[in-house]
Amino acid sequence: MIYFDNAATTYPKPEAVYREMDKCMREYCANPGRSGHKLSMEAGRVVLEARELLAELFHAKKSENIVFCLNATDALNIAIKGLVEKGDHVITTSMEHNSVLRPLKHLENAGIETTIVPCGKTGELDLSHIEKAIRGNTRLIVTTHASNVTGTIMPIKEIGEIARRNSLKYIIDTAQTAGAYPIDVEEINVDVLVFTGHKGLMGPQGVGGFYVKEGTALRQMREGGTGSMSESLIHPELLPDKYESGTPNTPGIAGLAAGLRFIKEVGIDHIRMHEERITRYFLEQLSKIEDVIVYGPGPLEKRAPVVSLNIENKTSSEVSFYLDNQFDIATRPGLHCAPLAHNTIGTGVHGAVRFSFGYYNTEDEVDKAVKALKSIVKEECC
Amino acid sequence: MIYFDNAATTYPKPEAVYREMDKCMREYCANPGRSGHKLSMEAGRVVLEARELLAELFHAKKSENIVFCLNATDALNIAIKGLVEKGDHVITTSMEHNSVLRPLKHLENAGIETTIVPCGKTGELDLSHIEKAIRGNTRLIVTTHASNVTGTIMPIKEIGEIARRNSLKYIIDTAQTAGAYPIDVEEINVDVLVFTGHKGLMGPQGVGGFYVKEGTALRQMREGGTGSMSESLIHPELLPDKYESGTPNTPGIAGLAAGLRFIKEVGIDHIRMHEERITRYFLEQLSKIEDVIVYGPGPLEKRAPVVSLNIENKTSSEVSFYLDNQFDIATRPGLHCAPLAHNTIGTGVHGAVRFSFGYYNTEDEVDKAVKALKSIVKEECC
Repeated sequence: MIYFDNAATTYPKPEAVYREMDKCMREYCANPGRSGHKLSMEAGRVVLEARELLAELFHAKKSENIVFCLNATDALNIAIKGLVEKGDHVITTSMEHNSVLRPLKHLENAGIETTIVPCGKTGELDLSHIEKAIRGNTRLIVTTHASNVTGTIMPIKEIGEIARRNSLKYIIDTAQTAGAYPIDVEEINVDVLVFTGHKGLMGPQGVGGFYVKEGTALRQMREGGTGSMSESLIHPELLPDKYESGTPNTPGIAGLAAGLRFIKEVGIDHIRMHEERITRYFLEQLSKIEDVIVYGPGPLEKRAPVVSLNIENKTSSEVSFYLDNQFDIATRPGLHCAPLAHNTIGTGVHGAVRFSFGYYNTEDEVDKAVKALKSIVKEECC
Repeated sequence: MIYFDNAATTYPKPEAVYREMDKCMREYCANPGRSGHKLSMEAGRVVLEARELLAELFHAKKSENIVFCLNATDALNIAIKGLVEKGDHVITTSMEHNSVLRPLKHLENAGIETTIVPCGKTGELDLSHIEKAIRGNTRLIVTTHASNVTGTIMPIKEIGEIARRNSLKYIIDTAQTAGAYPIDVEEINVDVLVFTGHKGLMGPQGVGGFYVKEGTALRQMREGGTGSMSESLIHPELLPDKYESGTPNTPGIAGLAAGLRFIKEVGIDHIRMHEERITRYFLEQLSKIEDVIVYGPGPLEKRAPVVSLNIENKTSSEVSFYLDNQFDIATRPGLHCAPLAHNTIGTGVHGAVRFSFGYYNTEDEVDKAVKALKSIVKEECC
């Protein structure tokens, strides 16, 4: 199988990720931070290592500001709901995933107002629209770092500056960028940076989380056992325990640590350049096929390695089905859990076929995909 | 190492669990229920299989009433907070874990009242205390199935009956029992049954969840992408999607499925009887050592395979440290995230040393532990 669904989950993972997870399960998967015996200490050590590697990746000063959650959606719910109150106003964009839009829509029932700033046809954001949306009761801006539909990269540094000038909180969703794009939380004015473990960070599913800026206090969403201050019925305030309750996903975090070590070794610039090369090559080849409509920004520096497209007179589901069924090529059709992004780019009804590239994809695989698309256009195959 | 910390996390796991997790990571760990290609379908299939195995284990009619979460704490937070509103009254017991007590304590700030029914010195509950605690505004009873400190088994069937007679909701926490004790949600009047994957269910850490009774509606705690109804900004109401947002922990759920298959093959009665035999043998041997104080109920049918103890004039931390350091025996000292349970049994200051047994423990290991304890009592070793 040729796997072009890396924006959903990267696959395969580095060999070291498989090995570390298996080693964790077989050799040290006791309860970290709970019992104090050797296995428990070893489990705790790998959790701390993953936290430190994430802090290093995002340039956070302290690893205790890195929090582990179930996934990015969990982290976004904690971050968004933890920052706003009745009467507050939140600004977001039309390119967001349902993990941002659905919590915000839900919060409208609790008296929180939302402005969804419309983006352009390629998913690009006009910063002046953010500034114009600011009101007296605006508390928060939430944006993705890159769209999961078009790959469009958002100007997070500039949005952070707008947030700073207007004393607003800012949450960034890096699900599509962390691990390949440099992000410095000391340089960008961000209160909460949400990440997921199973995409660019090369770890397994089941681990996401966030960085929270020193001094930015969220209401926690889960209380429970933390292994700390066990004598107290009041959930502890210390970080990261405030936001982490119950037994963590130790094998998942161990796998993520291995993914992070791999990224550090290979270098995020190298990873990004490889993915850019594949994306550029695919876009070049696509431009030679008639009847293929490509979405998203033209300049490559504005696009994460995601290319959504459609073929004239075919639904995205048909095309993805043929690619999988006839050519063993995995892509994603439909709306990609981001309905307003599809409205923005004009694919709100049938969605689009998404090709999303990862570190292990090759030009040769792109050639095969292009050949398959040509065959589908000509209806040779189906 | 001799591992007697199974109440924190069972270890080791069946070989099939390690193999299935590794297979999942290497062969089919795409995003389940999202993309529709072959790998995604295979990931979706294993998630459904785990759901069906859990439904079968708990005698739930439909697998869609099984919901996956990060851990039992996550599930308890969703269940408790999803059922109560300002002005409601909740009844629980003094034997609960902080995963129940801390959310309830937190809810007091939101105008929810709690009665914590005191249990007896062995952790046993007098049912009349539950009945007496019921008020006009009582909405919910929450209890553990077995205490993580003393192993004391709660009369869940009888509590369920009290809940039914008084039209109250009932949540059971089966973290210490699922996989070894028969639980039939059709027979017991339970609205939400919370489970964890990494203890008796033999799966990895990072997966917990709950069964929710048909017709019992909880407010969801997380909105986001579900792979269903992607066009809607309103989080879907259908089960299990209502309570499951974002990418699930597929490798963890795959491992849990393997654990559940193992349990089905071996039989929960066989597993329970083995653990009971080990517990009985340990208690018999302990009764021959002077200066050892054992907590929890006498009759074995009232005790899950957990034995907490102290040695006169030694703190639990000291004893656990010696056991680990000198004898390579893993136990847990301290308060075990259940401070009121320790107050109940009289160990609120220094906690207790917990021995908790699993399917892979042997009489020979117990002999070694008893020898080690004798040596610690006599101060030969330390």
